[in-house]
Amino acid sequence: SRSINLAVIPGDGIGQEVVAEGLKVLSAVLPQDVKLETKEYDFGAKRYHATGETLTNADLAALKQHDAILLGAIGDPSVPSGVLERGFLLKLRFAFDHHVNLRPSKLLPGVTTPLAGQPEIDFVVVREGTEGPYTGNGGTIRQGTADEVATEVSVNTAYGVERVVRDAFGRAQARARKKLTLVHKNNVLTFAGHLWTNTFHRVAQEFPEVTTDYLHVDAATIFLVTQPERFDVIVTDNLFGDIITDLAAAVSGGIGVAASGNINPGREFPSMFEPVHGSAPDIAGQGKADPTATVLSVALLLRHLGYDTEADRIDAAVAADLTERSAQGARTTVQIGDALAARVAG
Amino acid sequence: SRSINLAVIPGDGIGQEVVAEGLKVLSAVLPQDVKLETKEYDFGAKRYHATGETLTNADLAALKQHDAILLGAIGDPSVPSGVLERGFLLKLRFAFDHHVNLRPSKLLPGVTTPLAGQPEIDFVVVREGTEGPYTGNGGTIRQGTADEVATEVSVNTAYGVERVVRDAFGRAQARARKKLTLVHKNNVLTFAGHLWTNTFHRVAQEFPEVTTDYLHVDAATIFLVTQPERFDVIVTDNLFGDIITDLAAAVSGGIGVAASGNINPGREFPSMFEPVHGSAPDIAGQGKADPTATVLSVALLLRHLGYDTEADRIDAAVAADLTERSAQGARTTVQIGDALAARVAG
Ligand SMILES: CC(C)[C@H](C(=O)O)[C@@H](O)C(=O)O
Ligand SMILES: CC(C)[C@H](C(=O)O)[C@@H](O)C(=O)O
Repeated sequence: SRSINLAVIPGDGIGQEVVAEGLKVLSAVLPQDVKLETKEYDFGAKRYHATGETLTNADLAALKQHDAILLGAIGDPSVPSGVLERGFLLKLRFAFDHHVNLRPSKLLPGVTTPLAGQPEIDFVVVREGTEGPYTGNGGTIRQGTADEVATEVSVNTAYGVERVVRDAFGRAQARARKKLTLVHKNNVLTFAGHLWTNTFHRVAQEFPEVTTDYLHVDAATIFLVTQPERFDVIVTDNLFGDIITDLAAAVSGGIGVAASGNINPGREFPSMFEPVHGSAPDIAGQGKADPTATVLSVALLLRHLGYDTEADRIDAAVAADLTERSAQGARTTVQIGDALAARVAG
Repeated sequence: SRSINLAVIPGDGIGQEVVAEGLKVLSAVLPQDVKLETKEYDFGAKRYHATGETLTNADLAALKQHDAILLGAIGDPSVPSGVLERGFLLKLRFAFDHHVNLRPSKLLPGVTTPLAGQPEIDFVVVREGTEGPYTGNGGTIRQGTADEVATEVSVNTAYGVERVVRDAFGRAQARARKKLTLVHKNNVLTFAGHLWTNTFHRVAQEFPEVTTDYLHVDAATIFLVTQPERFDVIVTDNLFGDIITDLAAAVSGGIGVAASGNINPGREFPSMFEPVHGSAPDIAGQGKADPTATVLSVALLLRHLGYDTEADRIDAAVAADLTERSAQGARTTVQIGDALAARVAG
């Protein structure tokens, strides 16, 4: 019989609330014969304040036993900027080699976009997750003096670039439009730019059916608001991916509905699924958070584990819910979760 | 008697066409007693192909004699990516210490924005121009092999960060709303992030009237499309500034109207003014390019040289022209330039 052994990390702020709804929908969608086991972990601000720990080697060993990880949100104003981000979120992505950071953007009917008209938006960003300016390389000399110098080093390897570019070509190949856009800034960041561009062109030869395109990251932000329909699959580096996926989320309905997967395609390590939004401490505990992004992250999780039918049911439930949303007035986090659970079960 | 000794660099593609209109408006707006001298320089793709040169030491010495530089656009598909960008544009910004890269965004009446509604947009981005990931630091080992490693180093100095932050505070102080937002990614790029954030807070104490705010660059892209009215002055690093100013241009009417100044505030070197758009080879030579961004760059140039009344006249002429634009149908580059020249002269 089948089973899913899930690590659950509610985290900080609204993380607790949205993860509860994600799990509710997950339980509702799974067939009777799939045994769902969950274990909750207390990572985040509270544990950091109590113990000074963000993510220990023992934690990593425990997490590694799971099939996948569902995360709500990590981060709180009481913790200095960077401590939980570098000490937990990025540490986990790097330790578990989550090199494919998958972020779909689809503007669903009934969803409000800040863009005029109702442009067609349906693309996926494949963001590299283990290299670039996120490696923590760099440093500071003469800190706090008038002569301070602080550096950040973007590290890009042929190994790291090629595997994510190949993954993105594979995803483009599997889609109807079969178009892949490389986003970089190869006219200024020429060292990394050459590596990304050359790798992209070389791997392209293995995928003759895929149409390729290139955009500088600055130009890409323009097209994301003026012509989002031009995108199908985008592949880009860690930092550019961070920036353009927030923008992509904003134009395709907001971060309330933006899901993401931190994927280790080879499954040597469990992959992690999380909403793109943060812990939103200003609205935490008030039942105001939209759990949709977490529920859609659960769909990505199911797809990763091979439960495609169940993932499709969640996507369909969310699409139906969003279409009718404007008629329903404001609902609480739990009400939205209940509605989605009812739809996927029904 | 007063005089302006201007270096003119039409450059590539539509650069030629838009600079001609910029000069037309400049001549029309200047009072009789101001002597305008211009010298044209042939930098760009053609010169590169003919001589292999992009910008020599002799060129820099010649340019240094001028009061200011007006640039159209540099770049052509026939030149490998990065050659003219690094060899001319960035070389000039670095050689002439253009550390304040000024990019105003104002949504004028009558201008179409991709955003729904007609949000109020009136802010200025102060982008650092001589540091960050633009320094060309970094390199490649084992190029072309499966073991290649390419790095890009973002260099940030207390000297460089402090002067641009102080400049931005001064600009915020001089505006009605007196609000300054620092945009960075200090939760991930913690070395540079600390330097920027600490400097920002320290300099803030000299400007008690200025309200301060901080946004991660990813969140900033969201607000630029959902709440652009929240921005007054933004200060940010070279790369983040590159990215968000293209987005800012897109939401406030497009790069057809986005002006920029590469400013050396101490006037040790001439400052350079240029439209944010590129050379657009696809529409070059067809009279289709909108010279408005160049004309607005001329206004920034005049303001920098102390000709505030004339700069105001250009801004007013552009605003009036844009308001009536929808009624006028498509006009050529020259027609728009003529209309603006007539308005500022009249
Ligand atoms: C919180 C932060 C470390 C993270 C990132 O920059 O990757 C977030 O912005 C994201 O996009 O998941
Ligand atoms: C052409 C390129 C070097 C330049 C930059 O990245 O600064 C351009 O995008 C700009 O914004 O002026």
